[in-house]
Amino acid sequence: MTNTSIQVVRSRAEADARTYGYYLTPDPELLQAFLEGLKANEERYGYPSCPCRLAAGKFEFDRDIICPCDYRDPDVLEYGACYCRLYVTKEVYQSKQLPTVPERRPIEKQAKAYETASEKPKDMEGRTSAGTTKIETKAIETPKAKLWYCKQCGYVVFRDDAPYICPICKAKREMFAELKTQIDFSG
Amino acid sequence: MTNTSIQVVRSRAEADARTYGYYLTPDPELLQAFLEGLKANEERYGYPSCPCRLAAGKFEFDRDIICPCDYRDPDVLEYGACYCRLYVTKEVYQSKQLPTVPERRPIEKQAKAYETASEKPKDMEGRTSAGTTKIETKAIETPKAKLWYCKQCGYVVFRDDAPYICPICKAKREMFAELKTQIDFSG
Amino acid sequence: MTNTSIQVVRSRAEADARTYGYYLTPDPELLQAFLEGLKANEERYGYPSCPCRLAAGKFEFDRDIICPCDYRDPDVLEYGACYCRLYVTKEVYQSKQLPTVPERRPIEKQAKAYETASEKPKDMEGRTSAGTTKIETKAIETPKAKLWYCKQCGYVVFRDDAPYICPICKAKREMFAELKTQIDFSG
Repeated sequence: MTNTSIQVVRSRAEADARTYGYYLTPDPELLQAFLEGLKANEERYGYPSCPCRLAAGKFEFDRDIICPCDYRDPDVLEYGACYCRLYVTKEVYQSKQLPTVPERRPIEKQAKAYETASEKPKDMEGRTSAGTTKIETKAIETPKAKLWYCKQCGYVVFRDDAPYICPICKAKREMFAELKTQIDFSG
Repeated sequence: MTNTSIQVVRSRAEADARTYGYYLTPDPELLQAFLEGLKANEERYGYPSCPCRLAAGKFEFDRDIICPCDYRDPDVLEYGACYCRLYVTKEVYQSKQLPTVPERRPIEKQAKAYETASEKPKDMEGRTSAGTTKIETKAIETPKAKLWYCKQCGYVVFRDDAPYICPICKAKREMFAELKTQIDFSG
Repeated sequence: MTNTSIQVVRSRAEADARTYGYYLTPDPELLQAFLEGLKANEERYGYPSCPCRLAAGKFEFDRDIICPCDYRDPDVLEYGACYCRLYVTKEVYQSKQLPTVPERRPIEKQAKAYETASEKPKDMEGRTSAGTTKIETKAIETPKAKLWYCKQCGYVVFRDDAPYICPICKAKREMFAELKTQIDFSG
């Protein structure tokens, strides 16, 4: 759908790494492969979903694996790298020893993605054979987004689930609560 | 209006550069000039508008060019430096080769700012000759702020337009949508 | 209440330092003491309150001193280090000269915390002698959280008070306003 250059994909990944103090993978071939994978996914789906995971091709369902995925920050925190090892800490970058990072995405989401992918013959043009569209729609139920706030720093997000880690103060998911309080919007 | 020291202006710029992994311009004379410009603007207008651009002197209108301006992040992403070259990437900082960065601020906003500035004789005291105030108010229509959220990471902002780049996940502006969904504030 | 390892506490502090471009204190013994203090507070209270300050043991009251505390960013901006000196700038880290940082927490909050702590005998099990609970509840009045937005960048938070510094654009507290505007949630 959209056309993106490798340079744009690279710049965005570098900007993201800078903001969080991460490094991109020290292996230049791996890096090139990831950037090409992100570019291909952006062109195929319209969003740069994770190059190491199977996307369902439906934005709302794949949202958690759009790079940088929801799992990156807790993974870098715990293992020094994300699942792909695209984003790593300075220590990992300097050691050049990429750790093994287990898949944090819930198994149900993975299963649904495989189900959908097998139902729908996918190619570069994103063609879908007639009749499968309905099944796909049934197979994927997208939860409803809510307003969440971090009880520690007050950060507000509109998402299906609270983030694993608050991007502002690094509080864990348990610190998030739904924002349901009566708010005066009359002023 | 307010009094600010160069040191405060410098500390704020440094803090901002640290958060985003940027560097301040490698040219010490240029840096000094920018910091003095920011200080002068903060004292004149009450907010540190861009030292390289003409401000209209009206907060709501100038909001996009208050430093760090709305255009900094997409400019650093694309050119390695902001329009002023106050904020640069590590690569630009080390090379000491400042790139030329085209003006991303919409031409209509620039034109309105020049119009307003020519109507209103501006000096350090911010005096306005009688009668021009009405014209100025007519000349500048401020859009109405809305709640926006990033469809990728859920980041919520209250602004006239969505940001060019999500400061949390680096998604581009197209990933933002207006937050109009019915929300239960009754709980 | 919760069990946390020193390693988890350390990883979180490192991630937080990376995001803001800070460094952890250059003194290894001090660092170890802080991390142990944070761990002890997290186990005692359920949240990692500042190792250098007296907590009241009530989340809503202590929220401003949960690490990273509300005062860290303005303190690092002004003094190069937070009150504890757990978080420091690169300059302070390299010089190994820890600055003296005055307490920015309002004296009334400090007084209330001491009052509560003297009323309630606290030990590692968090036992409270009967009858003191009521007094404690009376002693601490928690303000009501509101939605705030940064007039410069649009950042939205749900807190009792606006942050001292906008984590997104570094605007000062005065740039925050209450979000009371009539918003169309009907779409």
